Amino acid sequence: MERHILKYNKPFTFECGRTINGIELCYHTSGKYSTDKTVIWICHALTANSNPEEWWNVLVGEGKFFDTCKYFIVCVNMLGSCYGSSGPASVDADARHKNKPTDFYLLDFPEVSVRDIVESHKIVKNHLGIEKIDLIIGGSIGGFQALEWTVSEPDLFRYSVLIACNARVSAWGTAFNESQRMAILADQTFGAAKSIDGGKKGLEAARSIALLSYRSHEGYVLTQSETDENVLFANKACSYQQYQGKKLSNRFDAYSYYGLTKSIDSHNIGRNRGGVEKALSMIKAKTICMGIKGDVLFPTDEQKFLAKHIRDAEYFEIVSQFGHDGFLLEHEQIQNILSKVCKF
Amino acid sequence: MERHILKYNKPFTFECGRTINGIELCYHTSGKYSTDKTVIWICHALTANSNPEEWWNVLVGEGKFFDTCKYFIVCVNMLGSCYGSSGPASVDADARHKNKPTDFYLLDFPEVSVRDIVESHKIVKNHLGIEKIDLIIGGSIGGFQALEWTVSEPDLFRYSVLIACNARVSAWGTAFNESQRMAILADQTFGAAKSIDGGKKGLEAARSIALLSYRSHEGYVLTQSETDENVLFANKACSYQQYQGKKLSNRFDAYSYYGLTKSIDSHNIGRNRGGVEKALSMIKAKTICMGIKGDVLFPTDEQKFLAKHIRDAEYFEIVSQFGHDGFLLEHEQIQNILSKVCKF
Repeated sequence: MERHILKYNKPFTFECGRTINGIELCYHTSGKYSTDKTVIWICHALTANSNPEEWWNVLVGEGKFFDTCKYFIVCVNMLGSCYGSSGPASVDADARHKNKPTDFYLLDFPEVSVRDIVESHKIVKNHLGIEKIDLIIGGSIGGFQALEWTVSEPDLFRYSVLIACNARVSAWGTAFNESQRMAILADQTFGAAKSIDGGKKGLEAARSIALLSYRSHEGYVLTQSETDENVLFANKACSYQQYQGKKLSNRFDAYSYYGLTKSIDSHNIGRNRGGVEKALSMIKAKTICMGIKGDVLFPTDEQKFLAKHIRDAEYFEIVSQFGHDGFLLEHEQIQNILSKVCKF
Repeated sequence: MERHILKYNKPFTFECGRTINGIELCYHTSGKYSTDKTVIWICHALTANSNPEEWWNVLVGEGKFFDTCKYFIVCVNMLGSCYGSSGPASVDADARHKNKPTDFYLLDFPEVSVRDIVESHKIVKNHLGIEKIDLIIGGSIGGFQALEWTVSEPDLFRYSVLIACNARVSAWGTAFNESQRMAILADQTFGAAKSIDGGKKGLEAARSIALLSYRSHEGYVLTQSETDENVLFANKACSYQQYQGKKLSNRFDAYSYYGLTKSIDSHNIGRNRGGVEKALSMIKAKTICMGIKGDVLFPTDEQKFLAKHIRDAEYFEIVSQFGHDGFLLEHEQIQNILSKVCKF
């Protein structure tokens, strides 16, 4: 897929009420759009980017289920992320006027809601001239975006695929997010630093926490148990957590991460729409709800709830020792379900 | 119960190989010991103290199941904790010789294993002249201590009650501990400060993480869901996490907490005993293993494993919306199980 940058030069108003003068949106497409092409819209999850060939390469690519040679596939980097779309790491053109210590927005970037992210997707869609999306798919916060969009523009979609997500952020999910934010804020370089490098240690701890919510007891016991029966202090799982923390802090900044956890906490399909159930009843797309057995973060009851309240919906369950992360890993099961339901 | 301090003036050698010249042990008893009294030994969990009337008052007190008027009840503050027994917040008598910037041990206190904690319990037991313990009980790391002691002195105990614990720390448990340590280490005041006040923010984040492992999705949804249907960013669960973090940092220091999470990671009943199953087979006490349905941190398979490999053991399951914390809260269920099995 090819990378594009769309410079949207009109004011963009966020759900929180703030407006900034223009945003940039980074997105990937497979080739050029024409009206005869089947359109697949992929929404990425928390720390991914707009290139699903990179992070979902088992499903997206030449000859794959989401065939980049056959379909017009679009994926937009979430507003607030740090992979090309505007976010905390962007330069604030007004920084000098405001006497800021840095040109970057950092914590001064407006708080981004899932609806803001979807509004930014619509800008890309309009720019490309797309009038019908055959299938939208996303897991986790990617699922939030798909769900939100199918509610706000019900006639736009034929199929919607919601994996390991829910109708509204749960108190449990928010508590996980807040724990991560507390870890980032405990790092005194966050906020204090004038560059986007602040908060790296906090970010590493946050990632370590998040990982637990993405995985399972079973998965850790299988892969991270000590090999030495007589070791005094268990260490293998520690190295793993540190490694995963570093891996993220090398590619992501603490400000975007902090902001995106807030975006998750904005998720509520029912806000100002008369409640969750009423909002779900507005969806017209044929919707596939997939839950992952043993998902610590989004228990399957939440996806069953979606399937129950969306008019034309079916629920499918994925089995994975990885828990929530199964949405990125159990591609065969996901593909089998998609093949069964989606006809295009 | 009354508080006592035992000054043990002989060298104490830790499992890690380090020796310090004497330790202090803080413990509570109900009255005075005499050989005709039934002896109940209570092992406390991570951040508790040696007074179970404070933290387990539904089960321990006058006229309660563990009747302080009837039984001789003992509880010792864990070595490495900050409630009276020696730990990182203790003064290192040799600090000046070592040219340390502070009189406190802080990170220089030896790493404490569960076996070290049990060895310190034995010092109190010998000091009191106790020759037989009728019942030992503990949940979580309290259960680790009970289990470890019944293996190392099999003939000392009549009943042993192990709640929500396991035979060896799981990789999952260690990953939770490491995430907490990473949050504490992300706080630059930890280690850098010369007083025990360092790392408070990190400790608060760590507590917030730990809390998630002690609770459940169900419990959070029931108690911490937003009441305002139209709120933009979920906040109730955030306040709760912050409140719980602060509550701990007001009463506990980051150094003891950091160290005690390492103590958990030392737990392995089979270390240098030919493995876990062999060690469990050495236990002679009639053992009650209680698991809590939905315990995120210690799934019930772990307590079923204990019951399977301990000669004279029975498994019971507790139901709780609180998850792991059910061991502190589901006193009626615990009491019913104890009444059924224990005869004294």
